[in-house]
Amino acid sequence: MGYVTAGKEYSRDSRYLTTRITADGRDGYRVEPGRYRLVVSRACPWASRAVIVRRLLGLEEALPMAVASPVHDERSWNFGLDPGGRDPVLGIERLQEAYFARDPGYDRGITVPAVVDVRTGRVVTNDFPQITLDLSLQWTAHHRAGAPSLYPWELRPQIDSVNEVVYRDVNNGVYRAGFAGSQEAYAEAYRRLFDRLDWLSERLAASRYLVGECITEADVRLFTTLVRFDAVYHGHFKCNRHKLSEMPVLWAYARDLFQTPGFGDTVDFDHIKRHYHLVHTDINPTGIVPAGPDLSGWLAPHGRGALGGRPFGDGTPPGPVPPGEAVPPAHTPLG
Amino acid sequence: MGYVTAGKEYSRDSRYLTTRITADGRDGYRVEPGRYRLVVSRACPWASRAVIVRRLLGLEEALPMAVASPVHDERSWNFGLDPGGRDPVLGIERLQEAYFARDPGYDRGITVPAVVDVRTGRVVTNDFPQITLDLSLQWTAHHRAGAPSLYPWELRPQIDSVNEVVYRDVNNGVYRAGFAGSQEAYAEAYRRLFDRLDWLSERLAASRYLVGECITEADVRLFTTLVRFDAVYHGHFKCNRHKLSEMPVLWAYARDLFQTPGFGDTVDFDHIKRHYHLVHTDINPTGIVPAGPDLSGWLAPHGRGALGGRPFGDGTPPGPVPPGEAVPPAHTPLG
Repeated sequence: MGYVTAGKEYSRDSRYLTTRITADGRDGYRVEPGRYRLVVSRACPWASRAVIVRRLLGLEEALPMAVASPVHDERSWNFGLDPGGRDPVLGIERLQEAYFARDPGYDRGITVPAVVDVRTGRVVTNDFPQITLDLSLQWTAHHRAGAPSLYPWELRPQIDSVNEVVYRDVNNGVYRAGFAGSQEAYAEAYRRLFDRLDWLSERLAASRYLVGECITEADVRLFTTLVRFDAVYHGHFKCNRHKLSEMPVLWAYARDLFQTPGFGDTVDFDHIKRHYHLVHTDINPTGIVPAGPDLSGWLAPHGRGALGGRPFGDGTPPGPVPPGEAVPPAHTPLG
Repeated sequence: MGYVTAGKEYSRDSRYLTTRITADGRDGYRVEPGRYRLVVSRACPWASRAVIVRRLLGLEEALPMAVASPVHDERSWNFGLDPGGRDPVLGIERLQEAYFARDPGYDRGITVPAVVDVRTGRVVTNDFPQITLDLSLQWTAHHRAGAPSLYPWELRPQIDSVNEVVYRDVNNGVYRAGFAGSQEAYAEAYRRLFDRLDWLSERLAASRYLVGECITEADVRLFTTLVRFDAVYHGHFKCNRHKLSEMPVLWAYARDLFQTPGFGDTVDFDHIKRHYHLVHTDINPTGIVPAGPDLSGWLAPHGRGALGGRPFGDGTPPGPVPPGEAVPPAHTPLG
C-alpha cells in the first residue's frame, strides 16, 4: 500500500469523527458500561494510548475491547484474529463496516482506536487525542478504586504543552521520517525528532515523569512511541541516530513505564513488528519482518525510583490483566 | 535493481576471473609497479579489503587505485566522481568497458575490486579473496619497509579456517539476510550471523586479534563487514538483533582496528550509506538514505591494548594517506 508520495513530505489526515461520549450525553452518546466497544490494534501507537489508559483506570469491564489483526490490506483493519474472522460482539469482519454504518459515504481513514456503539454498530468516534482524555474525565463513575488522575486540572496547561510538541516532533515525527517522499523532508523530520528526544532526555534526567511527580497522559503518549522505537522506527522508519537503548535517560524512563502495570502488559511486539513491516509495502516491499531487536533489555532494572515520584499518586497500580486480554507470552519479554 | 528473488534464498555469483598477477608471471601477468590499476568502490566490503591491504603494505605507488562512484545503475560501477566522468588513467566511463575488453561476451557480475592491465585496458582479475593474498605474497618486492606479514605461512591454516566461517556466516551472511526472498531464508541467515558473531565475541574477548598476536588477513576480512554493520547491515539488511555498538567485545575490536592507520582512514561512510540505500532499489524503493547512525563512537577509547598484541608484529604502521586518496572529512568521523 502507498504511504509515501514521491517528492512530498508526509501529511497525516487528521479529520476525525469528533462525536464525544460524555457523562452528560451532550453529543447523544452517554457514558454507559457495556454500551460501547473499543476497537484497537496493539500494533498502533494511537490505539495503544487508549489500551493503556483503559487499563490504568480499570475500565476493562465497562468498555470492552476488540483487538484487530496486526496485518491488513487496503481495506484496513479486520478481525482476522477472532474465530471465523468476525468480532464476536459486533459481528463484522472489517472495521470499515462500522465506519460505513456511521456514514455510507465515509471516505477518510479507517483508523484505530475507534469506539463503536454496539447497538447500532456505528463508529461514534475515532478522535484518539480526545478518546483518552474522555476516558479520564467522562468515565469517572466507572473507574476502579485507586485509579490515578492522568489529566489533573492543575497540570493541564503543562500536559497540553508537552503533548503538543511530543505529538509534532515524536509521535507523528517518526511517521514524517518514515513516510518522507524526499531526502529533504526526511532530514527535517529526523532533525526535529532527535532534537526533541534530546530535549526530553534533559527534562527527564532529573524528573521521573514528564509533568509533576506522577504518571499522566503525557507519559502515556510518549511511551507508545518509545516502546516501538527500536522495533520499528529505528530501522523501518530510518530514525537511526541512536536506538532508544542507546539514549540512557529515555531508555530508563521507557523501561520504568514498561515495567509498570498497565503499560508493558499491553504491548505486543509481534503485532507491532508484523504490522509495520507487512502493511507498509512501499517501504518494505519484500515483506521480510526483522527478527530483532533483542527485547530482553526491557526487563533490566531502571533505577528511576531514585528520582522519587509517586507513579499512581494517591492511587494504586491496576490489577492483573483480565483473562482473554493477555498478550501471548511469545510476543513480549514479560512472557 | 533486483537483488531479491521472491521465495528464494540469496546466492552470490562467485564465478570470478581467476587470472593471477604473480611475481613469476605464470598466468601472463607479472607483478610490475605502475602496470595495473586497482579499481575499487569504498562502499564495497570486498573491494575495501584490497584498499586496506594495499595501505598496510605500502603498495599505493606500485599499484595505483581508481575509486568508483558509490551510486550506479544496472550497468554497474562507473567513474562519476572523476572529472568528465572518466577514470583519468583508463579513460573509461564505466568499469564494464574493462570487463568487455577482457571478454566481449562477459555475462557475469561487473564487480569490484577489479585489477586492470593499464596497457590493454582489460580486467585481469576480480577474484577478491585471491587479490589480497597476492598483494601479501606476490608483491613483496614493492612492499614498504616495515610492512606487516598479513598471511604468515605458519598461521595460514588458522587464518584460512577463520576466513571460511567468517565469509559464510558474516561477510556473505549479511547479504543472505538482506537479500533473502523468504522469511525462512532470512531467519536462517540471521541466526547463523548472530551465532557466529557470538562465537567471534568469545574468541576476541581474550585475544586482541583473530589469529596470533598481530593483525592478519583474517582481521581485514572481518573488519570490512563490521565497519558497515550499524551504517547499513543493521537497518537496511535487517541484521538487527543488536547493533555492533551493543556487542561490547566486537565493538571494541572494530574500534581498535578503525583507529589503526590503514583501516579507518580508508572508510567512507557516505559512500557506504549512499551505495546500499540508493542501489538496492528493491529493498529501499524510496531511495531515502538514513541520516544516522551517529559515528562519533568510532573514536572512543577501545581499551584493547590491555590484551597485548603487536598490531604490526616486527613491522610498523603505514604512513599518512597519500595525497589525493584521503576520504573527505565530511564522510568520516576522523575528519
